[in-house]
Amino acid sequence: MTDRKPYERKAVYYETDQMGIIHHSNYIRWFEEARDHWMTEMGMSYEEIEAKGILIPVLSVSCEYKKSVRYNETVLIEVKLTAFKGVKFMAEYRVTNKETGELKVTGTSSHCFVDKELKPIHLKRDYPEVYKMFDEALKHD
Amino acid sequence: MTDRKPYERKAVYYETDQMGIIHHSNYIRWFEEARDHWMTEMGMSYEEIEAKGILIPVLSVSCEYKKSVRYNETVLIEVKLTAFKGVKFMAEYRVTNKETGELKVTGTSSHCFVDKELKPIHLKRDYPEVYKMFDEALKHD
Amino acid sequence: MTDRKPYERKAVYYETDQMGIIHHSNYIRWFEEARDHWMTEMGMSYEEIEAKGILIPVLSVSCEYKKSVRYNETVLIEVKLTAFKGVKFMAEYRVTNKETGELKVTGTSSHCFVDKELKPIHLKRDYPEVYKMFDEALKHD
Amino acid sequence: MTDRKPYERKAVYYETDQMGIIHHSNYIRWFEEARDHWMTEMGMSYEEIEAKGILIPVLSVSCEYKKSVRYNETVLIEVKLTAFKGVKFMAEYRVTNKETGELKVTGTSSHCFVDKELKPIHLKRDYPEVYKMFDEALKHD
Repeated sequence: MTDRKPYERKAVYYETDQMGIIHHSNYIRWFEEARDHWMTEMGMSYEEIEAKGILIPVLSVSCEYKKSVRYNETVLIEVKLTAFKGVKFMAEYRVTNKETGELKVTGTSSHCFVDKELKPIHLKRDYPEVYKMFDEALKHD
Repeated sequence: MTDRKPYERKAVYYETDQMGIIHHSNYIRWFEEARDHWMTEMGMSYEEIEAKGILIPVLSVSCEYKKSVRYNETVLIEVKLTAFKGVKFMAEYRVTNKETGELKVTGTSSHCFVDKELKPIHLKRDYPEVYKMFDEALKHD
Repeated sequence: MTDRKPYERKAVYYETDQMGIIHHSNYIRWFEEARDHWMTEMGMSYEEIEAKGILIPVLSVSCEYKKSVRYNETVLIEVKLTAFKGVKFMAEYRVTNKETGELKVTGTSSHCFVDKELKPIHLKRDYPEVYKMFDEALKHD
Repeated sequence: MTDRKPYERKAVYYETDQMGIIHHSNYIRWFEEARDHWMTEMGMSYEEIEAKGILIPVLSVSCEYKKSVRYNETVLIEVKLTAFKGVKFMAEYRVTNKETGELKVTGTSSHCFVDKELKPIHLKRDYPEVYKMFDEALKHD
């Protein structure tokens, strides 16, 4: 998807369920971790963005489970920005086994930018440096 | 959606995040709880189904966040079977505030039926009582 | 322990792990749910307390696992206040199977009262109604 | 505690709660991750141990919260084996901020060795290589 370093993650024991595989809800959490890593790679961590007073809640997520991930398996999670228009952005995710490259899970998420009262903010006007980061990521990804 | 009793759930503290709302990943878990309740209402709990040797892994999920749910809020979760063909099924979810009826979250999930080695099973032939339950739910929902 | 209604809880699927039992970390979360229920029974929910500007972080927890709880099992969780001196309180927990009464898990937690900047507050002076609630619970439990 | 490499972990967003800190239940999960890392460092991962048919359930845990950990903070988690007698073992944990060394959380856990039916096993006789690993860790830690 991109030449950025994908997020690396080991599946841990408490993420398994009695089916013997990683519970499907955890991938939504892994996407968040990967998104965080990706923002940091792009130049500004989500922590820094939130410190500016910008929250980025999730509008939607989707996830397709191709193959089970098992306990102790190491996966790579790639994130790709697929849309950004200043108010919202959309990202895609690919989870693969680190060793074999086998595709495990794909997904998407969409997000908006709001202030601490959860009201929409005008990113381009009020936070041009954040706007620029996403805009360049869109061209790059 | 149906005249079945929806699943009732109170949002708990550990499900919040520092945005002050329920973390978005938890709804995927609530869908599972609601699905479980719904199967029990249909006549066979997931526990009974799993005891027969049938696992029902998740093939895909999607979730749209309309409004935040906050700590201690009571929600109702309706489940509707939207497709079933013996090998797979698909369900829809609606999360509403119990008091106001306000729509909070919608979602979908799709599932298959497998044995304990995660291999597909022929539901109609091998577990006709389970087949029948889903088939009638499809007509009813 | 007390004549208050214990908190009732069904163990759900995503709380299991690949050992086929409820993952041990979840009981700490169940204690929180039970504590919340218990405060509400005492007359003031944690939500109401937090709305006054009082946070009740956890100083310590302990948990002893006597018997496994399995998926779909219904448990009762009793909470007993064992110490309260205005600055801190301590509680005990007992998790039992609802049907058989079998003891599953016991535990403790200790807590302090702080403001939103996580600074200690003088409960008796500043929030006498909250002080009174805990003080009476101590006599009663 | 020891010269083994401590487990390194970044606190992630979904682990926060509306108090703005990492929810206290997560440290129990971090202890498990750290224990896993520590077994791997000792020479045998928990995955390998479980593949032999040995499960290591938790008998008890305790946790003391000294200072809050916040989102995006990197912590080190040290594990020290404090007791081992072939049937059970006990471990201690120290969570510190990676940069400042500030002590955040301490804890303990105790465990037994059982087979897949959750029945006790005679480690020294049946799995001498696992016995030896723990026995040497006890001398070393």
